[in-house]
Amino acid sequence: MLIEKYAIQEHNNSAATAHQRRFEQLAGQVPQVDSLLQKLVDFQIAIPSWALGTGGTRFGRFSGGGEPRSLEEKIEDVGLLHTLNRSSDAVSLHIPWDIPTSAASLKALAAQFGLHFDAMNSNTFQDQPEQAHSYKFGSLQHTDKAVRKQAIEHNIEVIRYGQELGSNVLSVWLADGSSFPGQLNFRKAYQRTLESLQEIYAALPGDWKVFIEYKAFEPNFYSTTVGDWGQSYTLATKLGSKAYTLVDLGHHLPNANIEQIVALLLNEGKLGGFHFNDSKYGDDDLTTGSINPYQLFLIFNELVEGMDARGMNHVSDLGWMIDASHNVKDPLEDLLQAVEAIKIAYAQALLVNTKALQEAQEQNDVTMAQEILQQAYRTDVRPLVAEARLRAGGALQPLHLFRSLKVRDRLVKERGAGAVATGL
Amino acid sequence: MLIEKYAIQEHNNSAATAHQRRFEQLAGQVPQVDSLLQKLVDFQIAIPSWALGTGGTRFGRFSGGGEPRSLEEKIEDVGLLHTLNRSSDAVSLHIPWDIPTSAASLKALAAQFGLHFDAMNSNTFQDQPEQAHSYKFGSLQHTDKAVRKQAIEHNIEVIRYGQELGSNVLSVWLADGSSFPGQLNFRKAYQRTLESLQEIYAALPGDWKVFIEYKAFEPNFYSTTVGDWGQSYTLATKLGSKAYTLVDLGHHLPNANIEQIVALLLNEGKLGGFHFNDSKYGDDDLTTGSINPYQLFLIFNELVEGMDARGMNHVSDLGWMIDASHNVKDPLEDLLQAVEAIKIAYAQALLVNTKALQEAQEQNDVTMAQEILQQAYRTDVRPLVAEARLRAGGALQPLHLFRSLKVRDRLVKERGAGAVATGL
Amino acid sequence: MLIEKYAIQEHNNSAATAHQRRFEQLAGQVPQVDSLLQKLVDFQIAIPSWALGTGGTRFGRFSGGGEPRSLEEKIEDVGLLHTLNRSSDAVSLHIPWDIPTSAASLKALAAQFGLHFDAMNSNTFQDQPEQAHSYKFGSLQHTDKAVRKQAIEHNIEVIRYGQELGSNVLSVWLADGSSFPGQLNFRKAYQRTLESLQEIYAALPGDWKVFIEYKAFEPNFYSTTVGDWGQSYTLATKLGSKAYTLVDLGHHLPNANIEQIVALLLNEGKLGGFHFNDSKYGDDDLTTGSINPYQLFLIFNELVEGMDARGMNHVSDLGWMIDASHNVKDPLEDLLQAVEAIKIAYAQALLVNTKALQEAQEQNDVTMAQEILQQAYRTDVRPLVAEARLRAGGALQPLHLFRSLKVRDRLVKERGAGAVATGL
Amino acid sequence: MLIEKYAIQEHNNSAATAHQRRFEQLAGQVPQVDSLLQKLVDFQIAIPSWALGTGGTRFGRFSGGGEPRSLEEKIEDVGLLHTLNRSSDAVSLHIPWDIPTSAASLKALAAQFGLHFDAMNSNTFQDQPEQAHSYKFGSLQHTDKAVRKQAIEHNIEVIRYGQELGSNVLSVWLADGSSFPGQLNFRKAYQRTLESLQEIYAALPGDWKVFIEYKAFEPNFYSTTVGDWGQSYTLATKLGSKAYTLVDLGHHLPNANIEQIVALLLNEGKLGGFHFNDSKYGDDDLTTGSINPYQLFLIFNELVEGMDARGMNHVSDLGWMIDASHNVKDPLEDLLQAVEAIKIAYAQALLVNTKALQEAQEQNDVTMAQEILQQAYRTDVRPLVAEARLRAGGALQPLHLFRSLKVRDRLVKERGAGAVATGL
Repeated sequence: MLIEKYAIQEHNNSAATAHQRRFEQLAGQVPQVDSLLQKLVDFQIAIPSWALGTGGTRFGRFSGGGEPRSLEEKIEDVGLLHTLNRSSDAVSLHIPWDIPTSAASLKALAAQFGLHFDAMNSNTFQDQPEQAHSYKFGSLQHTDKAVRKQAIEHNIEVIRYGQELGSNVLSVWLADGSSFPGQLNFRKAYQRTLESLQEIYAALPGDWKVFIEYKAFEPNFYSTTVGDWGQSYTLATKLGSKAYTLVDLGHHLPNANIEQIVALLLNEGKLGGFHFNDSKYGDDDLTTGSINPYQLFLIFNELVEGMDARGMNHVSDLGWMIDASHNVKDPLEDLLQAVEAIKIAYAQALLVNTKALQEAQEQNDVTMAQEILQQAYRTDVRPLVAEARLRAGGALQPLHLFRSLKVRDRLVKERGAGAVATGL
Repeated sequence: MLIEKYAIQEHNNSAATAHQRRFEQLAGQVPQVDSLLQKLVDFQIAIPSWALGTGGTRFGRFSGGGEPRSLEEKIEDVGLLHTLNRSSDAVSLHIPWDIPTSAASLKALAAQFGLHFDAMNSNTFQDQPEQAHSYKFGSLQHTDKAVRKQAIEHNIEVIRYGQELGSNVLSVWLADGSSFPGQLNFRKAYQRTLESLQEIYAALPGDWKVFIEYKAFEPNFYSTTVGDWGQSYTLATKLGSKAYTLVDLGHHLPNANIEQIVALLLNEGKLGGFHFNDSKYGDDDLTTGSINPYQLFLIFNELVEGMDARGMNHVSDLGWMIDASHNVKDPLEDLLQAVEAIKIAYAQALLVNTKALQEAQEQNDVTMAQEILQQAYRTDVRPLVAEARLRAGGALQPLHLFRSLKVRDRLVKERGAGAVATGL
Repeated sequence: MLIEKYAIQEHNNSAATAHQRRFEQLAGQVPQVDSLLQKLVDFQIAIPSWALGTGGTRFGRFSGGGEPRSLEEKIEDVGLLHTLNRSSDAVSLHIPWDIPTSAASLKALAAQFGLHFDAMNSNTFQDQPEQAHSYKFGSLQHTDKAVRKQAIEHNIEVIRYGQELGSNVLSVWLADGSSFPGQLNFRKAYQRTLESLQEIYAALPGDWKVFIEYKAFEPNFYSTTVGDWGQSYTLATKLGSKAYTLVDLGHHLPNANIEQIVALLLNEGKLGGFHFNDSKYGDDDLTTGSINPYQLFLIFNELVEGMDARGMNHVSDLGWMIDASHNVKDPLEDLLQAVEAIKIAYAQALLVNTKALQEAQEQNDVTMAQEILQQAYRTDVRPLVAEARLRAGGALQPLHLFRSLKVRDRLVKERGAGAVATGL
Repeated sequence: MLIEKYAIQEHNNSAATAHQRRFEQLAGQVPQVDSLLQKLVDFQIAIPSWALGTGGTRFGRFSGGGEPRSLEEKIEDVGLLHTLNRSSDAVSLHIPWDIPTSAASLKALAAQFGLHFDAMNSNTFQDQPEQAHSYKFGSLQHTDKAVRKQAIEHNIEVIRYGQELGSNVLSVWLADGSSFPGQLNFRKAYQRTLESLQEIYAALPGDWKVFIEYKAFEPNFYSTTVGDWGQSYTLATKLGSKAYTLVDLGHHLPNANIEQIVALLLNEGKLGGFHFNDSKYGDDDLTTGSINPYQLFLIFNELVEGMDARGMNHVSDLGWMIDASHNVKDPLEDLLQAVEAIKIAYAQALLVNTKALQEAQEQNDVTMAQEILQQAYRTDVRPLVAEARLRAGGALQPLHLFRSLKVRDRLVKERGAGAVATGL
């Protein structure tokens, strides 16, 4: 289905007065508000193809209906989101779940929605039906050279698909590790992983990056071979200047100070990008900003300050992507909430009075430093985010419009109540 | 397949001399060794039917072969284990994964292996094909009375199956909870859960118990409705004298002092039983004793001391069950390792010089209290465990014999390389 | 020093226009704004006497100057805070750090500032110079009856001091526990603690309450004898209707869902009160709302909903107290920030559309439930909190006024740069 | 006091028969037992000077008596330990707690006990009376150049003391960090710390090493500037080949896989040494091996395998030191237990059948890998450790002899019941 321009126009008209009043009240207090709004307009977050269906746990999936039945329908779903919020202009594919039959026609379809293809994700944590070797005991770390070779070639194949689609990033997440003490020689597993990554790196086109994702633990694991930012960082450093660390917010031990990790990786020139989600206990893949929105703000505070200090482009110098599992909410509604939460955090971070903060820091005026951060955080920036959306041609209240247009009902009608997303 | 008596005999003969020497060296240092050995002989751990196949995560299962294709073959697998170690004389079933076609013939089959049926487990965390209502938003806590009713009736049905099989315990584990702040009214969810449990409790036969399992978190959760021992305890107390708390070692927040919880529940007369496993990060369902064997010993130390203080029967007054997921090991081998680890911890706890420990405690002689505990723990009690197994008619080295008899190969031959366990 | 009425008046006048504009913009969107403001006016948070000086760690304290040198100066400091924010009308004393020489004159002094005396805190975690027995191995749990007796009598003495001062709550926090496995018999330690508490309870005046604080861990500990809400709850239940559980936000294991604990305790009628602070890793005693303000809001959301459901009085039916350690900020500034954070969270919770939330919950509309909570949370309620303060006679911007009046400088002048708070 | 040779001889004679029997029973099963014993004889663990007195928390210290009143008496205490166990031939000093009046005579005293001086520890986490600038807001990270300079000079002074005493390692632990979001610019704090370390590194003699300790958190902290192995590693790498990471077992986030960190640091050639202790919750500084002895074994398993793979000398190529706080045990008894636990773990690791383990790993035979590790771990190696001690001239049962000689009573008599250790 398509959301027509006039539907958005109508929605915006009906909400315009109230919005205008709120926006103007706030705008008066924001220095250089137009420049800030432009940053909000420009900032885009990629949607992963696997987040468009209901996610599950080891016990099962409780799917809703109307989920995309094909790669094309996934593109359409992201198109829907982008039409509403003008903030999700890219889709991140996963191979082999999303192998295009024709890259050219898929690119054309995406372009119709103003979308392009962001990071390509490989999968060596599941066995596919036709596969010669099993990843039961790992992939790039595997003791058997043949398994490693298969996993390396798969990654190179993913790059190839990505090239056809106009992507320029390979994102590597490994479920490699062990379940029991003694199962693995940590040293050799690290070394084999490095050598495998070097072969993949050698196949990377000149204008591509590779992101090495780390993860502290998986259910039923005792160790993960790329377990923390330090391990990812050493691998990325050994690989070369096109290799970076990817930070997934859910992939840390309890109480980790993620904002500090972000600041340090940025400082070392090795931060590649983000997977946004939130969590209460482990890698819960909940909607970003739903559990600890202040943490999300603190991370953006480091990003804005750090990128500005290095003269980086907020939009294009890091990869921004959602990675969540929508088990009890409508995936599209959940993604709208996630993008909103990210833009709110970004807007708050842009509001921080950096000069005053640095002065407070220099003087160890801790009270004032906290006041300055919280002054930005406590500001209700939703009118700014809405205004940016308005200027970009999106809806003032995307979720509200999604519901009033009965999008899900129409998708169920189109695709069926039993339509379950392909892939994960 | 069956393991013949003579195979065990032969194995024991070949290992007898070495065993005898080691046993005698140790026996001399153990007071009342025969009484201790009898306790080891008597102590039995139930095997859950779902642990007989390869377990999985949300990404998939990497099954081996020769897994039981039917409930009968599951009984046979437990029979195999019990033949080898004489320590697993019961099986714990899970409904609807294990609905017997004929309870009578299943009982007869089990009896052939010297097995009986321990706690019956209900399942309201998955939707079954024929089911009228979904458990997507919980079962006993559900806002919709019809869903609660369905879940209550399912539990009562499980009791009925259990009665036919000679079980006398219903074990209730709920995946009820929420994924996001605001999703649930904690108070009402607790109240609804209590009322549902009360209906189930009313259907409990006079000589039955019900175990309320708690769990701190599940992947993708923000809250679980029976989240800690305190919640389970208040529910069990309100239900009545047949309701108890079940402790699963993996169901705690990081760093929880489980041995203390065990001691307190025992003291309150509300400890029902155990699910044994081990974990590094979350509810990892790894082999018990594989990650932190000292913790397992400390738990048994509380159990032995506390049960003795209350005049409880070690074998029958608490429920003992393994609950693990065997993802990278042969499930039967893994279960042999688990039972061995439990018996070792039990034997070490029996070795603790309780009188000396109490004296050290009274005098706050912390150094000596640690010495006394570690004196028991550091003792290599494997000869005692092996001797008990020998006296009970089992194999001196069950895992060794399992491998030398090529049990798995024979099961694969019988059942096929693609045989994947029914149920989970 | 005193802050004169006219200083506040002047400050408020200068900030009035800007405040008035912001308040009116918000007030239009708030239903029953006057009733809400009255709740904010009424809500008071007690200040603990030990928070008025710089706190420390095991390595030392880095004191600022001008700290209160006597109990009287502590009262003056709380008076200062209350003059500024009209939200801290009580002080919580700690015996033996705060033994009054004359209760009558202390009460009179407090009354001058509009202050009264909230919960009285006993101390059996430190040895005092004149003390007969040491608490090295615990107090109410101690194996030696004489030590327990001393600790019991100390608590009864604290009640006596409290009676003279007009308090009606005894708050008991124990550092009782153990450092090593084996040191303690958990069961006996619990039993002895219960019996000691029963003796204290017997001495409790008819209109008093006793709060049993729990704590998951202390540095250098292996177990704490009142370690979680479940243990506190069973103790409070056994003691009787005047005994309640006290929740300190920092006293939990990593990732604990504190808002759920609060909801359950409230539901059981056993929630007594709160110690507010925040933490990143352990019991960090940082400013409440400085690390995870959304959690603070979620807790208040449970409190408001739960208290309203039980017809409880927000002000007087629970005890509200700050318990933090001000190591790198001026303690008075830090307390102003803490009180502000609490009032913001309370105001946000009052803004939650309870009816709409309950409807969303009944329908398992998880998306909408999150929207409703975050609609309240994202609102910038600072103008409401400021207006309430204004109506109560306080300063629009307490921290700003504190700095512009150079309060700390004046205190340093009065009391000396080396004045270090008595007690902790 | 001194323990006379004949006292040890007498003790060993009385225990000889029982020991001999146990040792011989075990020796028969150990391949190359003499070579293994020699490794145990050679392996030495340094004792930190601050561990010789009773440790404390922020609430206070509950000292025993007879603690060393001077640096000389600290040397004597370590001498006592070494006389008993022949495994603690070095002492690690802390400046300014242990500034020698005459290095020459202190060296001579140490030599009398067969002791030398291991790593020198600097202190920039406390303010000393005479100090010009405060470390309230950090030392090497401080925003004020003058504070950094003071801290740098202090470290260089520590090196100088160390040179006089024959040490060749500087160990740097920083309490630098922040308590609140916003307080610190992470990037600049890291950069300033690096530059400060570079100045210290420049002053390092040619044959010295510097160890950079990391720590995930401190009470009352929000961030630590050297917070994990990754941060320490990047600092050490930038400093140069004489800089290494020091691993303190208690300085990690919950559930961290320390053995993997150890293996990776060793693989990178950047592991410097160890601080041994154990913990249940945070940085508890409990006796190593008292909470999780299997973890200690797994760490040694990585060390032995990794050092052997790199051709490293077990004794001299890494620094081995205890770092614990003895709050409820006699410090000397506690240290005897700690050294015993370390030697047991080392002996178990030496028993691992490396060849068989590597084969099992190559074949992903996870069951067997676990068996091989636990075969070593479950072996009661105490007779081996005792035999090594015997061959080295120590006591068969050091703790037993310590008590039967009434060493503490004699120290109390010598030094007084109120003698409290200098320094921490």
